[in-house]
Amino acid sequence: MMTARILHGIGVSPGLAVGAAVWLRRATAEVPVRTLAENEVAGEQARLRDAVATARAEISALRERVAKDVGEAEAQVFDAHLAFLDDPAYTGEMERKIAAERVNAEAACRDVTEAMRTMLASLPDEYLAARADDILDVGGRLVRLLQGTAGLDLAHLPGPAVLVADELLPSDLSGLPAQVVGFAAARGSRTAHTAILARTMRLPAVYGLGESIEAIADGRTLVVDGDAGLVTVDPSAEEVERVQRDRQAQAELRARAEARAHEAAVTRDGRRIEVFANVGKPEDAAAAVAAGADGVGLFRTEFLYLENDHWPTEEEQYDAYRQVLEAFGDKPVIIRTLDIGGDKQLPYAKLPAEENPFLGLRAIRWCLAEPEVFRTQLRALLRASRHGNLWIMFPMVESVTELREAKAWVARCREELVQEGVEVRADIPLGVMVETPAAALTADVLAREADFFSIGTNDLTQYTLAADRGNADVAHLYDPLHPAILRLIRMTCDAAAKAGIQVGMCGEMAGDAALTELLIGLGLQELSMSSAFVPMVKEQVRGVDTAAARVKADAAAGAESPDAARTVL
Amino acid sequence: MMTARILHGIGVSPGLAVGAAVWLRRATAEVPVRTLAENEVAGEQARLRDAVATARAEISALRERVAKDVGEAEAQVFDAHLAFLDDPAYTGEMERKIAAERVNAEAACRDVTEAMRTMLASLPDEYLAARADDILDVGGRLVRLLQGTAGLDLAHLPGPAVLVADELLPSDLSGLPAQVVGFAAARGSRTAHTAILARTMRLPAVYGLGESIEAIADGRTLVVDGDAGLVTVDPSAEEVERVQRDRQAQAELRARAEARAHEAAVTRDGRRIEVFANVGKPEDAAAAVAAGADGVGLFRTEFLYLENDHWPTEEEQYDAYRQVLEAFGDKPVIIRTLDIGGDKQLPYAKLPAEENPFLGLRAIRWCLAEPEVFRTQLRALLRASRHGNLWIMFPMVESVTELREAKAWVARCREELVQEGVEVRADIPLGVMVETPAAALTADVLAREADFFSIGTNDLTQYTLAADRGNADVAHLYDPLHPAILRLIRMTCDAAAKAGIQVGMCGEMAGDAALTELLIGLGLQELSMSSAFVPMVKEQVRGVDTAAARVKADAAAGAESPDAARTVL
Repeated sequence: MMTARILHGIGVSPGLAVGAAVWLRRATAEVPVRTLAENEVAGEQARLRDAVATARAEISALRERVAKDVGEAEAQVFDAHLAFLDDPAYTGEMERKIAAERVNAEAACRDVTEAMRTMLASLPDEYLAARADDILDVGGRLVRLLQGTAGLDLAHLPGPAVLVADELLPSDLSGLPAQVVGFAAARGSRTAHTAILARTMRLPAVYGLGESIEAIADGRTLVVDGDAGLVTVDPSAEEVERVQRDRQAQAELRARAEARAHEAAVTRDGRRIEVFANVGKPEDAAAAVAAGADGVGLFRTEFLYLENDHWPTEEEQYDAYRQVLEAFGDKPVIIRTLDIGGDKQLPYAKLPAEENPFLGLRAIRWCLAEPEVFRTQLRALLRASRHGNLWIMFPMVESVTELREAKAWVARCREELVQEGVEVRADIPLGVMVETPAAALTADVLAREADFFSIGTNDLTQYTLAADRGNADVAHLYDPLHPAILRLIRMTCDAAAKAGIQVGMCGEMAGDAALTELLIGLGLQELSMSSAFVPMVKEQVRGVDTAAARVKADAAAGAESPDAARTVL
Repeated sequence: MMTARILHGIGVSPGLAVGAAVWLRRATAEVPVRTLAENEVAGEQARLRDAVATARAEISALRERVAKDVGEAEAQVFDAHLAFLDDPAYTGEMERKIAAERVNAEAACRDVTEAMRTMLASLPDEYLAARADDILDVGGRLVRLLQGTAGLDLAHLPGPAVLVADELLPSDLSGLPAQVVGFAAARGSRTAHTAILARTMRLPAVYGLGESIEAIADGRTLVVDGDAGLVTVDPSAEEVERVQRDRQAQAELRARAEARAHEAAVTRDGRRIEVFANVGKPEDAAAAVAAGADGVGLFRTEFLYLENDHWPTEEEQYDAYRQVLEAFGDKPVIIRTLDIGGDKQLPYAKLPAEENPFLGLRAIRWCLAEPEVFRTQLRALLRASRHGNLWIMFPMVESVTELREAKAWVARCREELVQEGVEVRADIPLGVMVETPAAALTADVLAREADFFSIGTNDLTQYTLAADRGNADVAHLYDPLHPAILRLIRMTCDAAAKAGIQVGMCGEMAGDAALTELLIGLGLQELSMSSAFVPMVKEQVRGVDTAAARVKADAAAGAESPDAARTVL
């Protein structure tokens, strides 16, 4: 009888799965090379263009799916891939090479990819160097499409399978058969592109298994525990059965949740919790309504700026805001003003290059420094206000001075519009996105002049712990369950309660149903998340007793470490 | 009668000064150009080398002065200047040009400087682009030395003078006559190299006056108020007299402070406050003792790593630590373990390039990831412990887990040494540098396992406010008087008091005598600063009443903004 062996990694996508190990053996870099006759050049270039078009369609589909299910910010990781496909220095260079050197498309693709990868990897800028992995993935996808082969030969899987790899790339996950139930990889972290994809696909994944992954032989039974970050090789029959029961229970819970998605989320003791959706684009509003969202807790306006070749006009913005407001009728729609800065560049505007962009001129800081851009956005928002229940939220506010300046701009724009005879709703709540430690620590001061708070846990965590959430070297420190974060959340909620204003949360934490009880216990009244999570979080709310949740939340905030807080929960 | 006019800028060096305006008219870029005869080449190259050697001596002297009076970190800004002087692509290229193009040294210097400046300014990396200003300053200094002219013709100032300029460069401040009593500039911020120099020279300075500076004509009387950030043009006679009285009072206070520098600093109600010195190198220990420091509150060990061409050996480190410990006898010497990371590179080790180095793998995080480097340092510290009163402090700790890991390494090293028969002091306090919001927010948890705290306000401020202190675009946000910072300091002090452990402060804030009462009111028991500030802070302590200070501190921490907190004080 085999003994189970447990491998330790990082849970990057939650849930349990059981299946047979299938090693991903990546096709080696060998591609057919042949010399073309002169009359073959045009045909070969056309073949390349076809492959590029298909790759673009595949990646765009992935991008849309992630945007819808996880969020616009996460989806942006695929923009780099798409940009390569349109880059004359990349695909253009391949076409040139086919003609100049009379080589076939596969060979041209391989050579140009390798040259570009080497160039990118040698750059001192870490952001650009990381693009070296992206180009390898894009190049691999193109070669696969040119050769007409599937990325993986997974067509004939006999049953549920867990994909095992040294490292997973986004192209590996395109068109996976339904038999694939989970992932295990030696390398990678929560922020890997494929980790985000795994969460989108709701497939459990454990990364960072290191060399221990060698213990997994093809065909062995694996249990992937994406919550605990464990992979069990050769589990006992009881273990497999337990996992299957658990999956069954999860499926039933999900079905129940979906059925009641449009009912209000009320705790056992009768407290209504607003469950809102984060929305990245107007097109996503319909999905949010369909998922049962009670409103929009975070409408990100960055797409208007990032996907344009000019500063978006008042009219363009008005149309977008109006769409979302109308989709939600009289339900609240919290629209966040532009959150941009040194780490995101615009094709039509030069933003400052900064040594620590996360600690730089971003969001409201940038808007107050560039009031014309801010003014256009505020005018568009105010004009759109009569089409629904608009709330305006300012990101990165860290002092009452900034809040007052922002509010003064709103008042100025309102006055302008009224003088122009434009109808503007009178009662637009103006709120603060609490995402710097300073804002949370002085929430009592801000609560006197803000109409609502929404806690952005992603940034709040990275500043409080001084750990860039995009930096793999400190990923082990980035943990929103650190008692310091829980205390800041509680402080913010207490200040809001005292001032009688609404307090919500729109960071990633809000969408994790395992944390719903904790968040209610800390004092949150509204939770905003990707549409996909709305039904499950609503269902979770229905099981919570506020008094018990408070006791648990206090214990977690008083715990000595993130792990201890986790144990409390 | 003339009416006084008040110009608003940023106070970058405190104090009051009155003097006649002297505009700095920088010599234009015109340098004599001539063609050399062949036998002149060697002589011209020698003339260049002489100028380079003199420039090196001038800049090194500046660097040493800043390191001694302000700190090693601030002094490092001059390392870039020194590096240029040794760069074959810079001074080497000038020598080559003299020979190849038969031009005189001034012309070669001008051309190479301009080419290098253009190249640097075009780089996308802000850090490197900022070097474009440095090279201009170094080039200007070389041309001045080659021409044998003084940077400024200030030899015949009739009386006290205030230097007025569009922007001040470090070379402008070399060899200034004693009649210069202050500075006013249109551009620049607190972090400008010359702002640091002005503070070192104890000369008041106001920068960032913008275009209003045009209102200052040569010879007009100016009052520079480096605390309020104001420059008064044509002040009234009463105003001038007030300033002179104030300066006189300051001078008397300073004399009194110096006379009592070696006495203990005890508040009016009898509380002893330890006034310690920050020390960057063993050589600075003597100055700290002479200044009356009660101990060392922060001995930075980075110099051992930054000024070496190899990892410093246990023996090299032991010697350095022993020197400082012996200089202070039985007084406490707090030595901080290596605080290095992505923003500081070592010539012999590749540290990771990070997108946000301040939020990356630095300090204790890096040491725990590279335990061999950490181990060598801990062994050297423990070996040196028998030569004095050693306290060991870990930087950037943000959880009790990290503190435990660090303490476990100390225990392991101690055991090793004991087995080797080496004598190690039994009672070495192990403390935490509180500089992340997380550490301050969970100070109660850390206080259970730390023997002392020292608050690092520089980093604490930049993380809490999410404002990089080196980024001019957000310099207006970086303010340690933000109520959020004051609350974090109070939280840390309260937790320390409850656990019965010592709490000090070693950030820049601790050396500001205007804040001494506030800091005592917040609960600090020890303040550590540049040696130069020790006597004044001690004198300030003697005037404080703890109960009154507490009331004031609570009012400041409850204020709505940094400015409101300032008004309370």
